[in-house]
Amino acid sequence: MWIGVDVGGTKVLAAVVDDAGRVVRTATRRTPGRRVAAHQVEEALAGAVLEVAAGERVGGVGVAAAGFVDTSGERVMFAPHLPWQGEEVRAGLERRFGAPTALDNDANCAALAEGSYGAARGASSALVVTLGTGIGGAVLLGGEVLRGANGMAGEFGHMQVVPEGHPCECGRRGCWEQYCSGNALVRCARSRMADRPSVLEEACGGNLDALTGPMVTDAAEAGDLVAWEAFQSVGDWLGVGVANLVAALDPELVVIGGGVSAAGERLLGPARTALARTLVGAEHRRLPDLVPARLGPAAGVVGGAALARRAFG
Amino acid sequence: MWIGVDVGGTKVLAAVVDDAGRVVRTATRRTPGRRVAAHQVEEALAGAVLEVAAGERVGGVGVAAAGFVDTSGERVMFAPHLPWQGEEVRAGLERRFGAPTALDNDANCAALAEGSYGAARGASSALVVTLGTGIGGAVLLGGEVLRGANGMAGEFGHMQVVPEGHPCECGRRGCWEQYCSGNALVRCARSRMADRPSVLEEACGGNLDALTGPMVTDAAEAGDLVAWEAFQSVGDWLGVGVANLVAALDPELVVIGGGVSAAGERLLGPARTALARTLVGAEHRRLPDLVPARLGPAAGVVGGAALARRAFG
Repeated sequence: MWIGVDVGGTKVLAAVVDDAGRVVRTATRRTPGRRVAAHQVEEALAGAVLEVAAGERVGGVGVAAAGFVDTSGERVMFAPHLPWQGEEVRAGLERRFGAPTALDNDANCAALAEGSYGAARGASSALVVTLGTGIGGAVLLGGEVLRGANGMAGEFGHMQVVPEGHPCECGRRGCWEQYCSGNALVRCARSRMADRPSVLEEACGGNLDALTGPMVTDAAEAGDLVAWEAFQSVGDWLGVGVANLVAALDPELVVIGGGVSAAGERLLGPARTALARTLVGAEHRRLPDLVPARLGPAAGVVGGAALARRAFG
Repeated sequence: MWIGVDVGGTKVLAAVVDDAGRVVRTATRRTPGRRVAAHQVEEALAGAVLEVAAGERVGGVGVAAAGFVDTSGERVMFAPHLPWQGEEVRAGLERRFGAPTALDNDANCAALAEGSYGAARGASSALVVTLGTGIGGAVLLGGEVLRGANGMAGEFGHMQVVPEGHPCECGRRGCWEQYCSGNALVRCARSRMADRPSVLEEACGGNLDALTGPMVTDAAEAGDLVAWEAFQSVGDWLGVGVANLVAALDPELVVIGGGVSAAGERLLGPARTALARTLVGAEHRRLPDLVPARLGPAAGVVGGAALARRAFG
């Protein structure tokens, strides 16, 4: 039995995953947050794993962590919402779980899941671009996640697309995720609401700070022009950024996941147009398919379990 | 005996290359140009190969072509300075040479040479960025060139870095090579000459259209401020573009080659500064070394010979 654990900023999700990549059962815990002792997070994980294991023999556990994991898969070097800062997380969790344990970044795990069971299954090469609050990403080559010399490959969201552009949480400016992400969608809708009436006024109760990505998605679904324009803009930037990655890597496939991708063709349509417009030599090559991710919010746990199966299976 | 052939826009260079990647002897022909029949180019290649072989037994020939080569390494799909437009070049050349023949893009061959014998030898992963008229590039993973689904990986020069930026020969706007290349160096120097006296006035005989990259390199060497600023600008853009690639791929090493790289630290110094400033998480990772290419103008033939050795050795 293989268990995947997804450790996000707000929630720990553990799942038993079968050999076809299907979630059999789950257990959740609240993430204790960043300002607690590391062992509190580790106890939350152990609680969820022991609950979901339900006393059965565990072949291995794969942990998908929202943070930078070192190349060896031993340490979480830095995580914006977790207390780990270079700790040897993997070995400590292995002791608590009492089962062989592997560790990787959550975006890498999600990509591995898409490559093993989802939209990128069988592709010789693929990019996975995950649009949440920011952008998560990974490069899949022959079904394997490219980890990079520091284990930090796939940080697509911080490629600079606008010189001296919007300031980014990373401390730099003009990063792709400032133009293409859940946050970008909300900012874009907010700025257009000044010029035009929109159902979003009511959705956020007149408080622009309360506006969320799902509100914009729902409003676009209902035909709201402001929301529609926000998706046009984010979709266009998605295509431009993907074109840059495709120029460098020429993948067979590009998989778009994350909360924002729930908008489907409303996002992918403008992205395909921008990709064809921006990509060099578009007239001399087969453009990569731009397809939605298949595994949704379960990608982290499914990928965690796949990681464990690869390591210990 | 392994022979490499570099087919550029103006010159065909064939070389016998030894097992340590050293050029033993060479033969050259003029490239007949784009508006001739394809067989004329093939005859020029055959002439150079037969001359350099000098009657000895040839183990294989590797052809490095300045154009897009398909994934199978059979056809040149498109080449700005050659008449090939989808022809089965490899098989035809093999018949003419009377020896097993392999074919790849010149930038890929140069990268393979740097990976096999040059600056990227032994690196687990490396990017090769070649600054000539434009930008050539390649991704080396475990010493192998990443070819991509269409054989078009490594087109770094056409990643968009400035929305609605300078128009590019590729028909798009704001491509990296418009800000970072030999052409960009000349444009940059030219625009600054309007504001400031410069030795470049004399170097180009007062005709700004006659200004060349090597003139700017020489003037910078002589302490000319306009030339120095042009290298600052191109070096800065080099660092910004490299930071984007490093965010995505996290390579161990970045190798900078091509004519512009003859300026050495004058180019690489500003590039390192910009890389450290622009790269996400620079404070949490080891920055990749930014080093000059080692093989210079011979990279194409050395890489061609390495390609043949890999295929037929």
